Amino acid sequence: MSFGPDAPLRLDSGLELSEFTLAFQSYGELNADKNNAILVCHALTGDQYVAGTHPTTGKPGWWISLVGPGKPLDTDRYFILCVNVIGGCMGSTGPKEINPATGKAWGLTFPVITVADMVRAQVRVLDHLGIDQLFSVMGGSMGGMQALEWAVSYPERVYTTVPIATAARHSAQNIAFHEVGRQAIMADPNWMEGDYLSRGGNPRAGLSVARMSAHITYLSEPALKRKFGRKLQDREHLTFGFDADFQVESYLRHQGFTFVDRFDANSYLYITRAMDYFDIAAEHDGRLANAFKDTPVRFCVISFTSDWLFPTKESRDIVRALNAEAANVSFVEVESDKGHDAFLLDEPEFHTTLQGFLDGAANRKGLKKP
Amino acid sequence: MSFGPDAPLRLDSGLELSEFTLAFQSYGELNADKNNAILVCHALTGDQYVAGTHPTTGKPGWWISLVGPGKPLDTDRYFILCVNVIGGCMGSTGPKEINPATGKAWGLTFPVITVADMVRAQVRVLDHLGIDQLFSVMGGSMGGMQALEWAVSYPERVYTTVPIATAARHSAQNIAFHEVGRQAIMADPNWMEGDYLSRGGNPRAGLSVARMSAHITYLSEPALKRKFGRKLQDREHLTFGFDADFQVESYLRHQGFTFVDRFDANSYLYITRAMDYFDIAAEHDGRLANAFKDTPVRFCVISFTSDWLFPTKESRDIVRALNAEAANVSFVEVESDKGHDAFLLDEPEFHTTLQGFLDGAANRKGLKKP
Repeated sequence: MSFGPDAPLRLDSGLELSEFTLAFQSYGELNADKNNAILVCHALTGDQYVAGTHPTTGKPGWWISLVGPGKPLDTDRYFILCVNVIGGCMGSTGPKEINPATGKAWGLTFPVITVADMVRAQVRVLDHLGIDQLFSVMGGSMGGMQALEWAVSYPERVYTTVPIATAARHSAQNIAFHEVGRQAIMADPNWMEGDYLSRGGNPRAGLSVARMSAHITYLSEPALKRKFGRKLQDREHLTFGFDADFQVESYLRHQGFTFVDRFDANSYLYITRAMDYFDIAAEHDGRLANAFKDTPVRFCVISFTSDWLFPTKESRDIVRALNAEAANVSFVEVESDKGHDAFLLDEPEFHTTLQGFLDGAANRKGLKKP
Repeated sequence: MSFGPDAPLRLDSGLELSEFTLAFQSYGELNADKNNAILVCHALTGDQYVAGTHPTTGKPGWWISLVGPGKPLDTDRYFILCVNVIGGCMGSTGPKEINPATGKAWGLTFPVITVADMVRAQVRVLDHLGIDQLFSVMGGSMGGMQALEWAVSYPERVYTTVPIATAARHSAQNIAFHEVGRQAIMADPNWMEGDYLSRGGNPRAGLSVARMSAHITYLSEPALKRKFGRKLQDREHLTFGFDADFQVESYLRHQGFTFVDRFDANSYLYITRAMDYFDIAAEHDGRLANAFKDTPVRFCVISFTSDWLFPTKESRDIVRALNAEAANVSFVEVESDKGHDAFLLDEPEFHTTLQGFLDGAANRKGLKKP
C-alpha cells in the first residue's frame, strides 16, 4: 500500500516521509462491522509473514502455531493483519528502498525512526481499511513495544492489547547488546558508510556477527545446555583449531549465515535504534502510570520465566503502572526454559493463556463464533 | 625466562614448543624455605602485572587492591608470582612472537593451547625458581580454571587453591559468546587469515567488537542500570542518529577502542579457545569428583551472586564434587551486584574471605607473620 505526498508521514525526529509504502499480509476476513481485526506486530528481525509460507526462506510464517483456523488467533473468527515496520526491509519503506528524491537507495540518509513512528504508519493502513478500532493489537519483544505504544497513543482505537516478552523501555544492557551489533556491521568495510547498496557491496560478515551475538540473547542458558551442552559437531575429538568443534558454534554460524540472505544491514541499524529509543515513561513526565491514565484498553501482559533479555521484572513494571491507574489488566508469567524465543515457540501454557484472553474478550465484544 | 630445545614444552594438542619464553612478575620475597609462594593466574585479557604499574597502559595492576603490604596477598609475608600465559601477548611465547623456525610471527601457525598447557608452562617457572610447593594458587575466571587445573594435575605441589568466579568446564553459552568474538575478529579483512603481523595489518575493528561483546558479559544488568541506565552522553536530547547517544554506548566503544592498544587479536583467539576446551570431568571419565580423589589440597571456592557468566551453580558443582571425595573445601558465595567483574573490584566481603582463608592456612603452615 503506497501513500503519496498529499499526506506525508510525520516522524518523531521532526522529519517527514513524503511518500512511503507499507507492505502487509492479512489472514482471515474482515467482518462487516470491521471489528474483528487483530494487528500482529513483528519483532526486530520478523516481518509480515505471520502464517503461510515465507517468500524468501520458504519456511512457515513465524507465528504459524498461533495463527490459523481453530488456533488461538483463529482466522475463522478474526481478521489478522501484520505490517512490515517502517524502516524494515520486506517491502515497507526503509533504508533499502529507493529515495524518490534522489533515485538512489536511502541508506543512512533514511531518517531515524521510532516505535511510535512504526505505529503511526500502521494507523494509516487501518484508516485505509476503514478499521476504527482493533479488536486486539499484540506482539512479542519489539512487537510488544508497538502493542504498548498503540494502547498509549491510540487508546480509543484498541479494544485489547497483548504485550508479550517486552518492556516499557529498553534497558541499558539491551542497548549495549544492540550497540555491539551495530558496531559489528559498521566495522565491515563492505558496509561502506551505509552506502553499500549504491556501491555494490554487502556487509555480510558484519551482519552475521551481529545476528550471532543477538541470537545468544534470545536463548536461555538451560536451553543451550540441553540442546548443545559441550557436544562436538560431526567429530569424535577436539581438533585443536578454530573450526566449529562444538555444535553450539556450528549452530550460531548457521544462524549468522542464513540471516544475511533475508535481512538488510541498514534496516538492522534502524530497527535496533528504534528499540533503544523506546521509553514510554520518558514521554509522560518520567512516570509510566501517567501513560495509562483512564485507559479503556484491556491488557494481557505475558512474560516467560527464563527470558533474560526482557525479564519478567519488565512486565511487572508495566502491570504495576497499570494497576496504579486501576486499568483492566491480567498478567501471566509463563514457566518456560526457552528464553526470550519462547514467544515464537510452541509453549502450551502461553497458547492457552492467549486463547483464553482472546475468547473472553471476543465473546464480550459479541464477535461471531466460528 | 627462556627455555631452550633441550626441554621442549609438550602440549595437549600433541605438538611441542621447542623453544619458549615465559614473562612473569613477582612481588615480595621468596623465603629461605621457598614455601611462601602464591601463584596468581590471570584471566583471558589479564596479564602478569598484578600490582605496580602496567607498562603499556600506565594504570595500576589488575589486583592492586589485593596485592601489597598489609593487603590480603601480603607482600611482607608472601612471594607473589604471576606468569603471562603461554599463548598470551605480554612477553610469553604466543602467536604474536617470532617463530624461530621461520623468523616470522607465529600467527595461526602457533599450536592451539589449553589451560593444562598454561599450567604445564608455569610448572617450568616454579622448577626454575626451586619452588617445590606453592603455598597457594589462585585466580578468577580463566585464572580460576588454572587454579583448578593445578590442584588436579599437581596436587602435591599445591598447599591451597582459590578458584574464583570460575567453572570446571566452559558452558555452551560461554562458548557461544567466545565464538562471536572470534568471528568478529576473523570477519575483519585486516585480520588477513591471521597473518596480519607479517603483512602490516591489524584487525582493530574486529577485536574491538569482540571486546565490546565480551565486556557486556562481565557486568550485571543491575550494575549497568545503576551506572548508566538510559542516561544520555553529553547531550540533552536524543540525536536521531547512530552516534553514541547513550552513556552505555560510549562506555562500550571506549572499552573496545582502548583494548586493541594492549592486546593481540590472535592471542584473543587462542586464549578463548583454551577456555572453551576446558572440561576437567571429560578427562576423568566424565565424573568431576574423580579429578579430586584423595586430594591433599585445601580449596576455597568463591563465587558472586550477580555473576551470570560464571554463575554460582558452576562453583557449587565444584564444591559438590569435592565433597563427594571428602576434600577440604570452604565455599563462599559473595553478595555483589557487580557481575563477573566483581573478582577484580573492591568487594569487602570477598577480600575478607580471601584474607581469612590465607591467614588461617599460613598460620597452619607456620609462615612467619609480617
